[in-house]
Amino acid sequence: MKRAALLLTALVAGFGFAQNEPTISEETETCLMCHESATPGIVADWRTSRHARTTFAQSLKKDALERRTTAEAPPDGVAGDVVVGCYECHALNADAHADNFAHFDFNINVIVTPNDCAGCHPTEAEEYSHSKKGNAHDNLTKNPLYMSLVNSISSVKSYDGAIARIPSGDIRGETCLACHGTVVEVAGTETVESDFGDFEAPVLTNWPNHGVGRINPDGSKGACSACHPRHSFSIEIARKPYTCGQCHLDPDVPAFPVYKESKHGNIFSSKGDDWNYSNVPWVVGEDFTAPTCATCHHSTIVSPDGEVIAERSHDFGTKIWTRLFSLVYSHPHPKDGRTHLIRNADGQPLPTTFDMRPASDYLIDEETQRARRDNMRDLCASCHSSRYAENHFAKLDRAIEQADSTVLATTKLMTAIWGAGVEDGDNPFDETLELTWVRQWLFYANSVKYASAMGGPDYATFKNGWYELTHTLEKMKTALESATE
Amino acid sequence: MKRAALLLTALVAGFGFAQNEPTISEETETCLMCHESATPGIVADWRTSRHARTTFAQSLKKDALERRTTAEAPPDGVAGDVVVGCYECHALNADAHADNFAHFDFNINVIVTPNDCAGCHPTEAEEYSHSKKGNAHDNLTKNPLYMSLVNSISSVKSYDGAIARIPSGDIRGETCLACHGTVVEVAGTETVESDFGDFEAPVLTNWPNHGVGRINPDGSKGACSACHPRHSFSIEIARKPYTCGQCHLDPDVPAFPVYKESKHGNIFSSKGDDWNYSNVPWVVGEDFTAPTCATCHHSTIVSPDGEVIAERSHDFGTKIWTRLFSLVYSHPHPKDGRTHLIRNADGQPLPTTFDMRPASDYLIDEETQRARRDNMRDLCASCHSSRYAENHFAKLDRAIEQADSTVLATTKLMTAIWGAGVEDGDNPFDETLELTWVRQWLFYANSVKYASAMGGPDYATFKNGWYELTHTLEKMKTALESATE
Amino acid sequence: MKRAALLLTALVAGFGFAQNEPTISEETETCLMCHESATPGIVADWRTSRHARTTFAQSLKKDALERRTTAEAPPDGVAGDVVVGCYECHALNADAHADNFAHFDFNINVIVTPNDCAGCHPTEAEEYSHSKKGNAHDNLTKNPLYMSLVNSISSVKSYDGAIARIPSGDIRGETCLACHGTVVEVAGTETVESDFGDFEAPVLTNWPNHGVGRINPDGSKGACSACHPRHSFSIEIARKPYTCGQCHLDPDVPAFPVYKESKHGNIFSSKGDDWNYSNVPWVVGEDFTAPTCATCHHSTIVSPDGEVIAERSHDFGTKIWTRLFSLVYSHPHPKDGRTHLIRNADGQPLPTTFDMRPASDYLIDEETQRARRDNMRDLCASCHSSRYAENHFAKLDRAIEQADSTVLATTKLMTAIWGAGVEDGDNPFDETLELTWVRQWLFYANSVKYASAMGGPDYATFKNGWYELTHTLEKMKTALESATE
Repeated sequence: MKRAALLLTALVAGFGFAQNEPTISEETETCLMCHESATPGIVADWRTSRHARTTFAQSLKKDALERRTTAEAPPDGVAGDVVVGCYECHALNADAHADNFAHFDFNINVIVTPNDCAGCHPTEAEEYSHSKKGNAHDNLTKNPLYMSLVNSISSVKSYDGAIARIPSGDIRGETCLACHGTVVEVAGTETVESDFGDFEAPVLTNWPNHGVGRINPDGSKGACSACHPRHSFSIEIARKPYTCGQCHLDPDVPAFPVYKESKHGNIFSSKGDDWNYSNVPWVVGEDFTAPTCATCHHSTIVSPDGEVIAERSHDFGTKIWTRLFSLVYSHPHPKDGRTHLIRNADGQPLPTTFDMRPASDYLIDEETQRARRDNMRDLCASCHSSRYAENHFAKLDRAIEQADSTVLATTKLMTAIWGAGVEDGDNPFDETLELTWVRQWLFYANSVKYASAMGGPDYATFKNGWYELTHTLEKMKTALESATE
Repeated sequence: MKRAALLLTALVAGFGFAQNEPTISEETETCLMCHESATPGIVADWRTSRHARTTFAQSLKKDALERRTTAEAPPDGVAGDVVVGCYECHALNADAHADNFAHFDFNINVIVTPNDCAGCHPTEAEEYSHSKKGNAHDNLTKNPLYMSLVNSISSVKSYDGAIARIPSGDIRGETCLACHGTVVEVAGTETVESDFGDFEAPVLTNWPNHGVGRINPDGSKGACSACHPRHSFSIEIARKPYTCGQCHLDPDVPAFPVYKESKHGNIFSSKGDDWNYSNVPWVVGEDFTAPTCATCHHSTIVSPDGEVIAERSHDFGTKIWTRLFSLVYSHPHPKDGRTHLIRNADGQPLPTTFDMRPASDYLIDEETQRARRDNMRDLCASCHSSRYAENHFAKLDRAIEQADSTVLATTKLMTAIWGAGVEDGDNPFDETLELTWVRQWLFYANSVKYASAMGGPDYATFKNGWYELTHTLEKMKTALESATE
Repeated sequence: MKRAALLLTALVAGFGFAQNEPTISEETETCLMCHESATPGIVADWRTSRHARTTFAQSLKKDALERRTTAEAPPDGVAGDVVVGCYECHALNADAHADNFAHFDFNINVIVTPNDCAGCHPTEAEEYSHSKKGNAHDNLTKNPLYMSLVNSISSVKSYDGAIARIPSGDIRGETCLACHGTVVEVAGTETVESDFGDFEAPVLTNWPNHGVGRINPDGSKGACSACHPRHSFSIEIARKPYTCGQCHLDPDVPAFPVYKESKHGNIFSSKGDDWNYSNVPWVVGEDFTAPTCATCHHSTIVSPDGEVIAERSHDFGTKIWTRLFSLVYSHPHPKDGRTHLIRNADGQPLPTTFDMRPASDYLIDEETQRARRDNMRDLCASCHSSRYAENHFAKLDRAIEQADSTVLATTKLMTAIWGAGVEDGDNPFDETLELTWVRQWLFYANSVKYASAMGGPDYATFKNGWYELTHTLEKMKTALESATE
């Protein structure tokens, strides 16, 4: 469509019509003068973006459902009649930015943060700030039990008769915090040489990082670039499942691989090239004929006659009633995106106890669960009968219950292993059988649940599913017997 | 091409040409009146389909090779001069359908089955009914040995000093039967509320399911929607490998992942966006320049000058001489799609004995194998010399033989483990080393064979291939020695 | 773009412009007369190629940066004013080709080799001949230590109380040598029947094979068709990551799967359909907005204003300073593509000793490393600040160091296992714990390093990364304790 449209534009232009060039601010023109040759890829990427061809004033003229901005006026210092260029974003809120530095004629922030994007997109930034994603750094690092596992894994090992572990921030940055987000701070400055002269630039710690819960030099949390990379700010990229799939993938969170193997994924892979990923609102049946992640978990979806079927939220968890992710069992979705605040009945910072009692005070109630489930069913009903959808959810309920029961059996076996002194439960995540037990809930039970939720049965069967749940339980029992005989 | 064609259509239309709208039956128009808003995605999907713009009468005018229908007349109650809409499919053979229900002015079947599709596509339905796919439910559930493995895996586990297993139909539906097909039956009715009034609809068991061997409420077997989803009935989707890849994937049947890593898959991924997946017959070199699954295993293929190189069959196995799939060894393809009827010399319902003797009475003879192999070679010869193809098949022969020999070694070791009383062979598929032995043939030998057949050497090497075959055999020997020392 | 251009061409043609048909040589016309029907797919593939529509004389008229040939004149016997057809390639250097045979009126080579392609592309062939790829067959088969592992894995196993291994050339051809390349020799002739008459053709050993280091019947090394398959000679295919991904994939060399999960891969998957993969030189920002493998490791890259940012090389290793691939540790890149010549301080044919001392005489020095690293940084700087790139490389340095330290710990533990007589280090690659140790460096350390290099953190974490490094070390320690208690 785009290509034919290009040609049409060319033909039309040939007959004498012309379009007004968008106005670029003087400051941004100055940036471009050097960066066109210093970082041509960034500039080219930006030129493909909506930011490069739209002014805030233009966005205001659109109907509410079609608008991509949620502010009533552009942020201080940004004109409503210029496109959104380098300077419009990289010079915002300079006082808050520890990473602001004098860059030739301007004072520039290295990192544009959710707090800066909030200038034009305040609703999105607000929603995101309440989400588990936006709090992903804290949710890991402020949870001492999770950190036992993190440090067990993300540590340099040495061997000298015994194994020693030295936890490493570097490894954390390459592993957990690559997705959860690092703490980016300014640690002095250094001289950068360039073709246009030298300048002093801030030295940033734990950078580059684009994790969803990154702690930024202005104190804000999150990285919009995680899903809207990097100077195209593309809604198309964010709506394609590859983006979600960077973090939500096997073996621990196999959402994307399960989707790829599902019928929805099959249709996306086969026909998705012809879909429109940029339309706002997103029209079911017209713009796409099978959902991507964003369809069910994020976007405003309307019917072809314009009726709103689902409302956009950048707090993705609000679409979900049950949290599939096993910790160590599934549970109703947390009320608050700051999951590190949860304490279960055993005092652990976990949404369920090891014997499967939920920390209900911190989790949404049945009424809220029902409402969210009904909303999802109504979305499914765009393409399926409501009974089809309800039956699907009922199957998911049973899959969760059965996988969790089997994890419970494994936890009982693990408890027997601890009781027999075969391994030491002080850190429950650092020995041979303990790390085997972790696989049961973190890899295999999760696979079974995601496979059910999105219809990718291989992940419920042979690929990290019931085969592995079964075999692992047998292996642990054999190991216990062998160690205690 | 499609896009440019759209533009051309628009230009032509601007000059005053017009196309006749297809005629929709009155019944289907009535369906659409509500469903356009009740399930807009289904309607939109259907509008993209050939069904929505073609009448049976039009299909009759085509040459035999180009026709997509194989009946000489439309089924009873369907007019030849209307497009194939909701009512034309969902009201067929009502008497046979336990899932038929009164839906406002009409009597409607919830599920359209192969027996219904047979009204216009009888040859396809007939072929399919003889295939292993069409009998996939029975081939699993009527084979007691397979069910030993199924129940070992697809069971909820508990632990109380010993492991207990409770086989679960729900888990079977999420795992094996998701692909093989469930039994869908009517279990009463329930009231469905809708914007257009309430109605009583049948309650279906084990639904939704789109497994290839599904047992339907009209007694028929199969689900055409497994490959031609769901209201687009797309031949394009069926010909793309993602569709086959929903069930034929690693670790047990790694056909699709091997294909993706093969040179054929490489070319498909790189250039396949420019191919024509809808043409009938399918022209090698013009419509595509490397095969997908359907090219070699299904479709009518012709040369650019119209010579038929391969004939379409919905009984996919008829293209294949050797069945790669290890049970527990490869073997000549079964004569009959109902593999649950097979008995080997040891009385087991398996195509080979544990010591590798084939159940030859149930398997195609050498002449048939040779004929099928020659047919495949002639298809390969579209793009490769016949020697190239023959050499490739000879390599495959040796790969199968060598993988099977190594599985035989493992089975001998397993027999020694049973003999030593380390594990109990009564159910050969439920203990630690037994489930390790299963990996040898079900995961690793299969990977080696599929890797050879389609040229994805990683699956023969480090990814579930010879590395794992070798390491697993060593591990089992170490375990036997450790348990008996 | 291509599609719109096609339409434009059609429109323009309608106004009376016409393009000259390319001239095909008489010999090639003769080939086509039969092969158009004998192997229509090959002919159709060739017709899509640049070879089919370009003459050498035309290529000479281009500017140096835009030329795809590097010879000053076509090879002997090929005219400059005909397109490059069947005969132009398959009849070259006949005297050198043991696979040359009388084929009706002509003498034809079965295999076109790098030495033949060198007729028009001498620089490419020369560079390739020095690369690790071009020497990939020898680098494996002439390294006795590697062959210990190869034969341990690529052998048929039998069991009769003990495990026996019979190394197999057939298995090597299906596994290691499928990528590294086989030795293709002529072993007599055989009669081939065809519709156009019978003929005698050479029987080739270890064929078909398209491994990068194939030993050809003319004595040359390599297979251009590995990346430029097979008669389209496509630069587009070679620049897409699927091609590299046939060999560079998990678990041992997870370059492609890491790329797919990286932000670069995310952008390629989401927007890559709109890029231009055929332009020479390749313009950053215009032709593509995120790199594929070829961008960083192969192609001539220019800025939109024509400045050369990176120079093409068919000796891919010359772009790389550190070799990530663990043998058993990472190390500076080898000076010479013939890595089988390396000897470390312990006399092993390995670039590092088991206790991590590099074989520095055979590896590039610090200055060369720095220069290559700076070149890569300058390429990154097309789209990222130079600090961003430098920080990224510094993170990679630490990831390599930490993964290697942990492999060293495992090697020490392995040494203790050998010392205790639990396993026998004579062949260090054939027993249970030895093959477990191999996983540490070959699968898990490699995954951590590639994950860092290209930003696919899942491979550093749960998918063959630090989780597996940690768990495997614990498992080996438990096994040692259990065996010696």
